[in-house]
Amino acid sequence: MSLTFEHVTLGQRVLFGTGNAAANLAAEVARLGAQRVMVIASDFETDIARTVATGIEVALWHHDVVMHVPIETAEKARAAAAGHGIDLLVSVGGGSTTGLAKAVAMTTRIPVIAVPTTYAGSEATNVWGLTEASRKTTGVDDAVLPVTVIYDAALTLSLPVDMSVASGLNGMAHCIDSMWAPHMDPINAALSAEGIRALSSGLPLIVDDPTGTEGREQALYGAYLSAVAFASAGSGLHHKICHVLGGTFNLPHAQTHATVLPYVLAFNSPFAADAEARIAAAFGTADALTGLQNLRKRLDAPKALSDYGFTADGIAEAVTVILPAVPASNPRAVTAENLSRLVQAALTGEEPQVLLDL
Amino acid sequence: MSLTFEHVTLGQRVLFGTGNAAANLAAEVARLGAQRVMVIASDFETDIARTVATGIEVALWHHDVVMHVPIETAEKARAAAAGHGIDLLVSVGGGSTTGLAKAVAMTTRIPVIAVPTTYAGSEATNVWGLTEASRKTTGVDDAVLPVTVIYDAALTLSLPVDMSVASGLNGMAHCIDSMWAPHMDPINAALSAEGIRALSSGLPLIVDDPTGTEGREQALYGAYLSAVAFASAGSGLHHKICHVLGGTFNLPHAQTHATVLPYVLAFNSPFAADAEARIAAAFGTADALTGLQNLRKRLDAPKALSDYGFTADGIAEAVTVILPAVPASNPRAVTAENLSRLVQAALTGEEPQVLLDL
Repeated sequence: MSLTFEHVTLGQRVLFGTGNAAANLAAEVARLGAQRVMVIASDFETDIARTVATGIEVALWHHDVVMHVPIETAEKARAAAAGHGIDLLVSVGGGSTTGLAKAVAMTTRIPVIAVPTTYAGSEATNVWGLTEASRKTTGVDDAVLPVTVIYDAALTLSLPVDMSVASGLNGMAHCIDSMWAPHMDPINAALSAEGIRALSSGLPLIVDDPTGTEGREQALYGAYLSAVAFASAGSGLHHKICHVLGGTFNLPHAQTHATVLPYVLAFNSPFAADAEARIAAAFGTADALTGLQNLRKRLDAPKALSDYGFTADGIAEAVTVILPAVPASNPRAVTAENLSRLVQAALTGEEPQVLLDL
Repeated sequence: MSLTFEHVTLGQRVLFGTGNAAANLAAEVARLGAQRVMVIASDFETDIARTVATGIEVALWHHDVVMHVPIETAEKARAAAAGHGIDLLVSVGGGSTTGLAKAVAMTTRIPVIAVPTTYAGSEATNVWGLTEASRKTTGVDDAVLPVTVIYDAALTLSLPVDMSVASGLNGMAHCIDSMWAPHMDPINAALSAEGIRALSSGLPLIVDDPTGTEGREQALYGAYLSAVAFASAGSGLHHKICHVLGGTFNLPHAQTHATVLPYVLAFNSPFAADAEARIAAAFGTADALTGLQNLRKRLDAPKALSDYGFTADGIAEAVTVILPAVPASNPRAVTAENLSRLVQAALTGEEPQVLLDL
């Protein structure tokens, strides 16, 4: 098969080190020659942000962070940045905080240093999101890509184990689903595989030792790669299914992703030899599904959509809504029949193996 | 072990497709909105360049390409670009051609699209090189990194099989040596592993089917990754050894790299568990050395430095010159004694296994 692809690598500096965030931030501010720094952090994360900023001069603290970046919140932050002659934005926090910094960068072109405290992954992409009149708009602009990301696993220690696992499995879903997503290419597949390796080694360590940093480091690193790969490859079958289950049936995000993933993997992997080989190698198991199921067992991951309010009555409607959204890139032809079987298996928590040879 | 690293990802668009160079170039010129394009190609590659440029308007053809980019050659090209109001440089050729475009970009800040016809890899780095009074100077400048690289394996079909293999094994050396180089990090290790996978699958296909494109595609893709990884990770033990053997003893570049590589791998791999695991997985073999040796056998790669003019008399001097250059990052402590043993084994072509447990 001919190798044909377009891959856009986003230029970015990543500084990774546990306990090093303050030193790395001070060095980056100096390297960039910034004079007027605005630090964005929610009230909830002010203490963490103050620790991270100990080595720099802060011209302006901004704590007005709201989930999903409402346009009013963005405009307040933009005005504050302009009013104070800010030349560098530093975000310390999760997806909403990074998102706010990006919203400011979008109109002001001020560069961003992101210091993530969760596995949201927004820091690794050039995607912005804004909410206006409860409608979310997203777009792509290289100016919103943080020039530098500073990862420090110590900042993620306050993330509870169950949230770490849920968020880590969400990253795992990004990695696995990237393998057959519309813009899949061998480069993002290699980065996805590295993300799978890191997440599968890190997440069990977090469960075993919640206050240790070794597992947190691997998971944070894996989450970064999952964001890079997902932003490059786009949404595959798994994300289309979960989007419908979440949107139309209001199922909880993290649990839905964790439950559905092995079924999509079992469904696609016999038709995607390269993905199967890469995923298996990343897990270090004979086949991809065994690797994912070993990990899910170890993490006591959610097993059946029936535990989250989905019922057999919903299958037909779900299939009707999912079918037209199935990416043309999916390696297995998706029909109403085999898709129903997939959703049914996820509903009841059957062994995913039943999907291997429908 | 704590995960601590700094990784700079260089932002670049890669368009990969056999037979697509002309169409991809036309699309990129349009996307960038360039009005005055200068195409740089050596006399030798004028025909290829004309074919690649069929879909664009060329304001200036520049054929004065000289190996190692003499400063006079660079200045002529810079003056030509300035004199013709050029707003985009397109290089079609190997390392010297890409290097000349970079030299122009360095002073003029005109963006570059690189269309490589060899596995040189310069197109994937922000490193420039100039030769003045027969001294080579190199430096790093993001302005010389091509904004887009267009890979088309059909353009590499004129590269003879033996040169393709030699150049591909040079890429393999970049990938393997990156695993313990001074700026090694898990991201460039993952890209190196992907490069190993691609080169080891592509090179035998080139030997089997010199006029086919499948092997050429994999090798070209692998060579690109080897350049990305090497530029990020830097020179490891292998490159330090080969640099001395080439510089002090005037041994031929490609053959020296191909010969020495398994000895460095055998020497380091028992002390580098992560590298060993990544390399073995990339080759799809139980251990890394077996993978490399299988490939070398398949390609009938050079086996002993004695075949290229090196003698036992040179070992002591080589070791003296190499020792102070050994990177601190090397996983195995290097002594005059074990390094002598390594060079001796490479001299005579002994089984590299003898180095596993010195």
